Amino acid sequence: MATPILADSVRLADDGVHILDRRVFPARQEWVRCATVEDVARAIEAMVTQSSGPYFAALWAMVLAAREAVDRPDPLAHLRWAGERIIATRPTNNHQREAVRSVLAGADGTDLVGSVLAAARAGDRRYRARSRELGEHTAKLLPDAAAVLTHCWADLYLVGLVTAAQEMGKTLTFHCTETRPYQQGARLTAHTLAEMGVETTVITDNMGAAVLASGRIDALVTAADRVTMDGHVVNKVGTLGLAIAAHAHRVPYLAMVHAPDPLAPTAADVPIEYRAGTEVLSAVGVVDPRIRGHYPAFDVTPPRYVTTVVTDRGPFDPAALAAYHEEGP
Amino acid sequence: MATPILADSVRLADDGVHILDRRVFPARQEWVRCATVEDVARAIEAMVTQSSGPYFAALWAMVLAAREAVDRPDPLAHLRWAGERIIATRPTNNHQREAVRSVLAGADGTDLVGSVLAAARAGDRRYRARSRELGEHTAKLLPDAAAVLTHCWADLYLVGLVTAAQEMGKTLTFHCTETRPYQQGARLTAHTLAEMGVETTVITDNMGAAVLASGRIDALVTAADRVTMDGHVVNKVGTLGLAIAAHAHRVPYLAMVHAPDPLAPTAADVPIEYRAGTEVLSAVGVVDPRIRGHYPAFDVTPPRYVTTVVTDRGPFDPAALAAYHEEGP
Repeated sequence: MATPILADSVRLADDGVHILDRRVFPARQEWVRCATVEDVARAIEAMVTQSSGPYFAALWAMVLAAREAVDRPDPLAHLRWAGERIIATRPTNNHQREAVRSVLAGADGTDLVGSVLAAARAGDRRYRARSRELGEHTAKLLPDAAAVLTHCWADLYLVGLVTAAQEMGKTLTFHCTETRPYQQGARLTAHTLAEMGVETTVITDNMGAAVLASGRIDALVTAADRVTMDGHVVNKVGTLGLAIAAHAHRVPYLAMVHAPDPLAPTAADVPIEYRAGTEVLSAVGVVDPRIRGHYPAFDVTPPRYVTTVVTDRGPFDPAALAAYHEEGP
Repeated sequence: MATPILADSVRLADDGVHILDRRVFPARQEWVRCATVEDVARAIEAMVTQSSGPYFAALWAMVLAAREAVDRPDPLAHLRWAGERIIATRPTNNHQREAVRSVLAGADGTDLVGSVLAAARAGDRRYRARSRELGEHTAKLLPDAAAVLTHCWADLYLVGLVTAAQEMGKTLTFHCTETRPYQQGARLTAHTLAEMGVETTVITDNMGAAVLASGRIDALVTAADRVTMDGHVVNKVGTLGLAIAAHAHRVPYLAMVHAPDPLAPTAADVPIEYRAGTEVLSAVGVVDPRIRGHYPAFDVTPPRYVTTVVTDRGPFDPAALAAYHEEGP
C-alpha cells in the first residue's frame, strides 16, 4: 500500500516550506511555497492546509524562523515572535502551540538552525508515531468488517486507523460526509481512502442521520481538534449533529485525539473560531446582498454523546480522561 | 409586499406548461416549456421543479392530457394513463396523486378540456387557500420575534407562514440550511425570504446542530412531504438530523403539511426515493471512479422528535392525527 499523498503534504526545502493546497486537492495538485514565517502563517489562515497540516507547517516554519534569526540581534526573541505568530493563526486547534513549544524547548543558541531543525524533525517523528498508536487503538475497537461513518478529514489519525486495520486483517468500509463549505470529506477523506484501497461512499452533510437510521453503520469515528478534560469534543462543525444522531440510534461514537488537553479543563476554555459568513455565501453561490452567511468552524459535542475518546495511550471513557495524564507526560 | 416569483412558477399556456427551472434559480430565471404530458413528467423527474411545484405541474399536465385526448378513440383512458405517468415520476411525495385524483374526479366526457381545466383551476385555488391557512396556524404558534431554523424549501407553506406572520405584526428571522446537493435552501428559500423582506442567514447543512446549541433558535419549522397517521414526518433528507438535534436542545419542531395522509398509516407505507449516487458525486465534484455516492432523497422523523404537526385545520399532536380526519374530508 502506497503512502497517501496527504500523509506527506507539508515539506521543508532550502527555499522554504512547501504546502500542498488542500483547497483544490485532489482536482489539482498545487503546492504553495512559503519563503517566510509570515507566508506560512497566512497559508494556515487561508486554509491552504488544515487538520494536522498546521502542526507540520508550524514545525517547519520554526526552522524558517531560525534561518531568519541568525542575522538578528536577538535570535531567540525572533524565534519566540515567530512561534507567537504561528500560534495566533487559528484559535481552536492547539496543534500549532504543541509544535512551537516542542521546537522552542529544543532551541539552542550555540547552533540555532541545527538545534531547531533537530527539534522539528523529532516533533515530526513523534506526531507520526503517536498517530500510528492512536490508529491501532481505534482499529482494535472496531468489528472486523466495520462500516464507519466519518466527518471532515481526520488526517494522519485516519491513515493510522486504516493502516492498522489492514494489518489486523480487518476490512473497513467508510461513508464520508462532504463537509461543507470546504468539502474536506468529499475531497481529502474520500480521495485518501480510495488511495488506500478502502471502499468509500460519499454523502452530503444532511444525510448522516438517515444513514445512521438505516442501520448500516457500526461506528461514527472522527478526529477531534481538542478534547477537554471533562470530555467535550471540539471538532469540525457538523460533528455535534452526527454524534447526537449516532447516540439516538445507539451507534457508538469514537473521537480520536493524541491526548485530552490539560490546558482545557472545560469547553469554556476552548475558543471557537467563527470564520467570515461570506465564506459560506461564496461556497453556496449566494450573491444577494440581502442574505447573510454564518460560519461557526467548529462545534462542541458534550460527553453524553461520546462513547469513547481514543488516544495514543488507548481508549478512555470521556468521564475519566484525567487517567490519561496520570501516566505522566 | 410583492408575490415571490416561486409562488407562481408553474404556468399553463396555449403552447404547454411553462416551469421555472428551480435547478438554476435565482442565478438564472429560465423557464422549461413542456408541450406534452411526457415532457412534464420528465421535468419533474429531472427536478426542474420540486416541493409544491409538481402539484401544479400535475394539474396543468392533466389539461395538456385533455387537449391530447380529444383526438383519441378513448379520451378518458388517455387521461387516466396521463395521470398514472405523472404519479409515477417521484414516489415519496403524494402531491401529484392528489392533483391527478381531483382532476379525474372533475373530468366530464361531454366537455373534456373545459371540465378538466375547471377542475385543475379549482385544485390550484384549493391548494393555495389551504397553504394560507396552514401558514396562519403556524404563525400563531411562534413568538413575536421568533428566530426560525428551516431546511430545504417549504414553498407555499413558507410563503403562507411569512405572509401570515407579517399580517400579525410578527417579525420572524430565518436561518436556512443550504440543502445539498440541490441547494434548495440556499437558493429557493433564502431568495424568497429576501424577496419578502425577511432577515435571512444561510448556513451549510452541517451547522444546524451548532446553531441549535447556541440558543439562538426558537423553533425548527419545515414542510413535510408526507406525514403518516402515526406521526412520522417524511421530508427532505436532513430533516431527521435537525429534528433530533432540536429535540436534544429542547427547541420545538413544527412540521407543516396540509393534512396527514390517510393512505399512509405508518412510515412503512411511504416509499423512500433513492436517487442516483452519481447525482451526489457530481454535485460535490468527485470524479474518482473508486468512490461511490449515496443519495437517499428523504428521511423519516419519528413522532418522538416532532413537537407539533401543523395542518390547514390547525396544530395536532403527532400522536393524535386521527382527529384531523374525524372532521370529515
